Amino acid sequence: MNFTKMHGCGNDYVYVDCTKGMIENPGEISRKVSHRHFGIGSDGLILICSSDVADFRMAMYNADGSEGAMCGNGIRCVAKYVYDKGLTDKKNLSIETKSGIKKLELTVEDGKVSLVKVNMGAPILKSKDIPVAVDTDKCIDADINVDGKVYKVTCVSMGNPHAVTFIDEDVNKFPLDKIGPKFENHPMFPDRVNTEFVQVLNRHEVNMRVWERGSGETLACGTGTCATVVACVLNGLTEDEITVHLLGGDILVKYDRDNDTVWMTGPAAIAFEGTIEI
Amino acid sequence: MNFTKMHGCGNDYVYVDCTKGMIENPGEISRKVSHRHFGIGSDGLILICSSDVADFRMAMYNADGSEGAMCGNGIRCVAKYVYDKGLTDKKNLSIETKSGIKKLELTVEDGKVSLVKVNMGAPILKSKDIPVAVDTDKCIDADINVDGKVYKVTCVSMGNPHAVTFIDEDVNKFPLDKIGPKFENHPMFPDRVNTEFVQVLNRHEVNMRVWERGSGETLACGTGTCATVVACVLNGLTEDEITVHLLGGDILVKYDRDNDTVWMTGPAAIAFEGTIEI
Repeated sequence: MNFTKMHGCGNDYVYVDCTKGMIENPGEISRKVSHRHFGIGSDGLILICSSDVADFRMAMYNADGSEGAMCGNGIRCVAKYVYDKGLTDKKNLSIETKSGIKKLELTVEDGKVSLVKVNMGAPILKSKDIPVAVDTDKCIDADINVDGKVYKVTCVSMGNPHAVTFIDEDVNKFPLDKIGPKFENHPMFPDRVNTEFVQVLNRHEVNMRVWERGSGETLACGTGTCATVVACVLNGLTEDEITVHLLGGDILVKYDRDNDTVWMTGPAAIAFEGTIEI
Repeated sequence: MNFTKMHGCGNDYVYVDCTKGMIENPGEISRKVSHRHFGIGSDGLILICSSDVADFRMAMYNADGSEGAMCGNGIRCVAKYVYDKGLTDKKNLSIETKSGIKKLELTVEDGKVSLVKVNMGAPILKSKDIPVAVDTDKCIDADINVDGKVYKVTCVSMGNPHAVTFIDEDVNKFPLDKIGPKFENHPMFPDRVNTEFVQVLNRHEVNMRVWERGSGETLACGTGTCATVVACVLNGLTEDEITVHLLGGDILVKYDRDNDTVWMTGPAAIAFEGTIEI
């Protein structure tokens, strides 16, 4: 099987061109190729397929073999793949995902895609839809007691639940390994939660580290980055278009309140090309 | 740059054929390709070179860019690489390393190498040479107090220091993350130490997990596996040829006391082939 290893801010997947035919047992193959010592090593497998309703379709599988719905860092790589490899010459693409059809705008430099802008849709703010177990309609700038300390959280779903937590200290020194799991399993979050720890630098920039439910700390989380900017704007902490500095790189996010939609712009990169016997 | 990703019991390196010319800045390239999200992902880089004094020479670089001397799991993969890819048709090989010339015996099935036997040389038992800060000439079945509990250790160097620690409990339930660092940094070990936690199953088999200095828990450690069998034999716990079950697979080790040498036999596997821009 030929593959391309790509990443968006360090969120890395194995990409396979299935436009001429699907592979069998993709979940099992994802488990095998994702292993970082015995396989290729990745956060999962993304198949690039043809679509009846969009330019392309992306099918994604997590490292444990389960099917995923959508990945903000992954879909940027799909756009780079299809353009750089000549599967399309369009700079405005539609890609079908299990979370609906996403619109993308490509920035091309020297014939290669450098940045991709993705319409990530509307944030979900209603507590019961996120879900958050509170008795208020929304959960903005709310108190949460974790490990004996009170934090301020704003809860946002971008298809998956996020607890955006603003901290005053240096985010790089924050004890994420210790505190992250306590947010993840806090009774306020019946489906568990992804937690973003955010340090506001100024009206245009924030530092963020993320603890993903089921995965622990990761280098980047596309939906978490969007949730962070929505929370910054709702709390009046920043402008509505800002740069989020993540461990894996920078992402630019705009929360367009008039149209209730979030736009995310970030890089996509090819790490290497390979072949594996499956 | 063309490469082959290989592993021996999960101990994985990027292998590059340099028999026709060395690559420049191998340490820097090792750092880059070893990154598990941005690069290829590996424990380091191994270059296969021609030699004036042996059949081949292996040059190894760790993931941090430093040069390594020898890797028991890595050298088996070098043997598989040169035979499977037709660089040699010899089944008894000599390979030059920074720890001297190693002799290897290849087991070939259907034209491909399945197992490789490596002469790992003589164990070093003198306390001052390992080094271990004790006032006895050797350190066999000695008491060590770690975190308020007394363990029994036997110390062996196979070029690097090992504290082989026998435990009665299920090794898979042992709290290695908590206890491993306390052995590593114990004042008894002036150069720190690799610690093997070993559960003897019978006279022919042991389970082992390893905490490597500077790396934490790994799936396999070739020299640690050899040190473990030396310690088993010195304490009269097993026969002199036994199977060691590691997280990453099984390794057969023989401690030949008459010739004061350790033989290690284990698998070597190709994970995938690739190309990367460097």
